[in-house]
Amino acid sequence: MVGRTRKQRPSNTQYAIRRNEIVDQAAELFARNGYAATGIREIGDAAQLARGALYYYINSKEALLEEIHDRVMDPLLEEARKIKALECSPSARLRMISEVLLRAIIERRDHVWVFLHEYRSLTGQRRVNFKRKRAVFEKIVGDLLAEGVDEGEFEIDDPPMTSLAFLGMHHYTYQWVQRHPDMDPKIVSDIYCGIFFDGIRVGRDKKAGS
Amino acid sequence: MVGRTRKQRPSNTQYAIRRNEIVDQAAELFARNGYAATGIREIGDAAQLARGALYYYINSKEALLEEIHDRVMDPLLEEARKIKALECSPSARLRMISEVLLRAIIERRDHVWVFLHEYRSLTGQRRVNFKRKRAVFEKIVGDLLAEGVDEGEFEIDDPPMTSLAFLGMHHYTYQWVQRHPDMDPKIVSDIYCGIFFDGIRVGRDKKAGS
Repeated sequence: MVGRTRKQRPSNTQYAIRRNEIVDQAAELFARNGYAATGIREIGDAAQLARGALYYYINSKEALLEEIHDRVMDPLLEEARKIKALECSPSARLRMISEVLLRAIIERRDHVWVFLHEYRSLTGQRRVNFKRKRAVFEKIVGDLLAEGVDEGEFEIDDPPMTSLAFLGMHHYTYQWVQRHPDMDPKIVSDIYCGIFFDGIRVGRDKKAGS
Repeated sequence: MVGRTRKQRPSNTQYAIRRNEIVDQAAELFARNGYAATGIREIGDAAQLARGALYYYINSKEALLEEIHDRVMDPLLEEARKIKALECSPSARLRMISEVLLRAIIERRDHVWVFLHEYRSLTGQRRVNFKRKRAVFEKIVGDLLAEGVDEGEFEIDDPPMTSLAFLGMHHYTYQWVQRHPDMDPKIVSDIYCGIFFDGIRVGRDKKAGS
């Protein structure tokens, strides 16, 4: 449905900019008042658009929820794919991915708040798309961890769980960054990666607490 | 208000058991359908109690939200305090805390889903209590990390951020455990702590990706 709407519209920049503005305003409203409690009318009010004009840009509340996710995930996936294709070491590429992921989470914390809490409201193809994109991102991280093992950088006992640990440490930032909105993604990334990569490094002397 | 109600009621086990059942049923409903979308009537239906009888156990939807949090947090805090007072190394105590935290998150994933998403609906003293309890738990983790530094076990550049990284990696488990509800907390804890403590261990040779 979203694809059809886009095809029917002129793909001019003005349209795309306005559309993104509406998505961002909706993210702010949903994050503040909840997805269920926010009506299309309030989104129209925030965007200063009458109902008909609003539907020129979005075709349902659920479509907006998908757009809120894609507004974070699509550029993130594009960057992650580029980073994965670079020539440097797996840990160096994971550090870059860590930083772009944290930048997305910190800068778009309303969006992240909304889709992490409300993704179960997505139905049909929208739910499939949401899961697929997240799986693609997780696979990039998993592949880089595996590359690190193959190239002798990392030693990992349980690859899927290690990947979840890495992602979880990053993702949960959306919660505490509500209290620290000016946090620098680079600093956070350096600390997370410093701990994490020392913790899975080949040749580490496994001692502490074991 | 909650305190007053409790004082008025006989503090017998039967009452406490029934009350906990209602809290758990509400957690399940809120997790499935959302806090805003779930009415007191539906909670009464789930508990098979008429409105008046329901109010014998709980005095508002917001009170239930606080109870849902406390049902996870109060026993967790009690265990964390006992663990902190033990004689063993800071890393061994943090491993124990990691395991009880993960057990709480995995076994009470509905409760955690609800209060992490809805805590901003708590007002007044309830909001204060929520924040205070979470701060107490975070301080226990922070203190044990600091003890580990003092005793020469850990080397930590940024203690508050390291604490947030440790907690975030654990907390985010509530999200992916929805897909893996039978995950063993001990196994998850071993993997998280294995990575984390190797990553902050004194004498580690900082190399990977730096």
